[in-house]
Amino acid sequence: MDALTSTLTVLDYAAVAVFGASGALAAARGRHDIVTFGFFAAVTGVGGGTLRDLLIGAPVFWVGRPEYIIVCLVGAVAIWVMGWGRERERMLLWLDALGMAAYAVVGALKATSLGIPPFSAVIMGVLTSTFGGVLRDVLAHEPSILLRRELYVTPALVGAAVFVGLHSFDLPLVVSGAMGFLAAFTVRAGAILFGWQMPGFPGRSPPT
Amino acid sequence: MDALTSTLTVLDYAAVAVFGASGALAAARGRHDIVTFGFFAAVTGVGGGTLRDLLIGAPVFWVGRPEYIIVCLVGAVAIWVMGWGRERERMLLWLDALGMAAYAVVGALKATSLGIPPFSAVIMGVLTSTFGGVLRDVLAHEPSILLRRELYVTPALVGAAVFVGLHSFDLPLVVSGAMGFLAAFTVRAGAILFGWQMPGFPGRSPPT
Amino acid sequence: MDALTSTLTVLDYAAVAVFGASGALAAARGRHDIVTFGFFAAVTGVGGGTLRDLLIGAPVFWVGRPEYIIVCLVGAVAIWVMGWGRERERMLLWLDALGMAAYAVVGALKATSLGIPPFSAVIMGVLTSTFGGVLRDVLAHEPSILLRRELYVTPALVGAAVFVGLHSFDLPLVVSGAMGFLAAFTVRAGAILFGWQMPGFPGRSPPT
Repeated sequence: MDALTSTLTVLDYAAVAVFGASGALAAARGRHDIVTFGFFAAVTGVGGGTLRDLLIGAPVFWVGRPEYIIVCLVGAVAIWVMGWGRERERMLLWLDALGMAAYAVVGALKATSLGIPPFSAVIMGVLTSTFGGVLRDVLAHEPSILLRRELYVTPALVGAAVFVGLHSFDLPLVVSGAMGFLAAFTVRAGAILFGWQMPGFPGRSPPT
Repeated sequence: MDALTSTLTVLDYAAVAVFGASGALAAARGRHDIVTFGFFAAVTGVGGGTLRDLLIGAPVFWVGRPEYIIVCLVGAVAIWVMGWGRERERMLLWLDALGMAAYAVVGALKATSLGIPPFSAVIMGVLTSTFGGVLRDVLAHEPSILLRRELYVTPALVGAAVFVGLHSFDLPLVVSGAMGFLAAFTVRAGAILFGWQMPGFPGRSPPT
Repeated sequence: MDALTSTLTVLDYAAVAVFGASGALAAARGRHDIVTFGFFAAVTGVGGGTLRDLLIGAPVFWVGRPEYIIVCLVGAVAIWVMGWGRERERMLLWLDALGMAAYAVVGALKATSLGIPPFSAVIMGVLTSTFGGVLRDVLAHEPSILLRRELYVTPALVGAAVFVGLHSFDLPLVVSGAMGFLAAFTVRAGAILFGWQMPGFPGRSPPT
């Protein structure tokens, strides 16, 4: 169990760093200065978990533990120093997929451990792993990740639902967590590699 | 009083479903998939009440009672199945007016019942009934409802102010609630039917 | 100490009024009605402090003390009555710089006085003084202040860091506060008068 806790902690920081780097990448697109890099990295890195904590009434996780923001800033500095490159962006895409999958589980786990009902816990998993990216896009004045047809919310939803479902059968945490993580990652990998999509709204739609 | 409570409960769920459907309609415009439909429906349906609860320090209403999100999803599925149509949009416009009027009262009532001062309670009524739509527009990367000249915040403000004003005279809740609801609905109906507007800023305005 | 408290209170209301006026100016650009003026003034005036209070788990400052919102509305009415003018906008720019500098200190002070660690207290100072303007721009569907190359977050960061740093040496509050205020104001003044900037991201940036 101690090994599990430390694995979770490592995953947690790693996910924050990766999300932070993806926020910094948005700042790189606009050639912003280092402070703006840091701002976007922090918002993207901790935005999802912040919303989760506000909704479930928990103390916001990073306020008392500033090392989370520092990890975001490390991600920002990494992007600043290394710059953008096609292969690096591809690597970041995969790291982001890992971070998203980890957060879908971690977010749902925190909610269930505070007695939030299963259905809401799934939502907390989804928000934890996707809301930072949504905030990043809104602040960067770009159409949010929600508006791309690419699967991003769906993998988080699948992963959080698998985890919460198995967790409710009292499986060992390492099993339900791993299954949730793998489910989220698999769906996201399918979206990246094979362009998996869900059918779009087939009906008559309002004029824009 | 029990009849009143159950009326309020029904109104509450009905308003959430209608707001949810209006969120789904925004997703229909972009031909999104069913998960995105659900996301927009949930954000629009519970966004205003969520902000209210965070501001007044109450537990966020839907976290412990997932049926609210389910009601949003029902609204989303309804739009998915039935598609868009001119008459249906018109019907939704009127349902939305009813939901807005109900929420202006319900939001202010929850605030006053928790001891929030009257002035702030009016603001909570306004935010409860309008902020879901604002979030929907921001996430859909569209100019928010705030930026249309159409009256939308104003009816909510009138309704919440009438309710809180009468409520402070210790009128029976059913009376002050009904008057607030009617005030909000009347102003909104005037905006829809007759294009009621308030005068715009007449002065010199900054260059854009 | 009493003189200090009343100075802080006056600064606090003055900053809210100035931020409120800057929100109303965004509404003036769209020739909106007086209710929309008030909405933008309130969001801009109290948005930053609201986020700070939610993050540090304090009761949201204006909910129990509606005079803050009233001060915002006074700022909105002032803009409505006086209209826009080049000199007035310039005056508002300087008042905004004073408000930003005051809020960077006030926001960080509130956080430290609640036992928030220094690093997070600096962040609270930054958010308190800048987030209202970010919200204003997002709701007005304009590229946010974050996306301009002009220094705005940086002065707040400098001021909050100077204040928190000196405060941790147990200097009298009036000294650390004044130094933080001056640091923030000086950097912002340099940005306004001389176009001070920080170097932008020099590396290869992703295609837009």
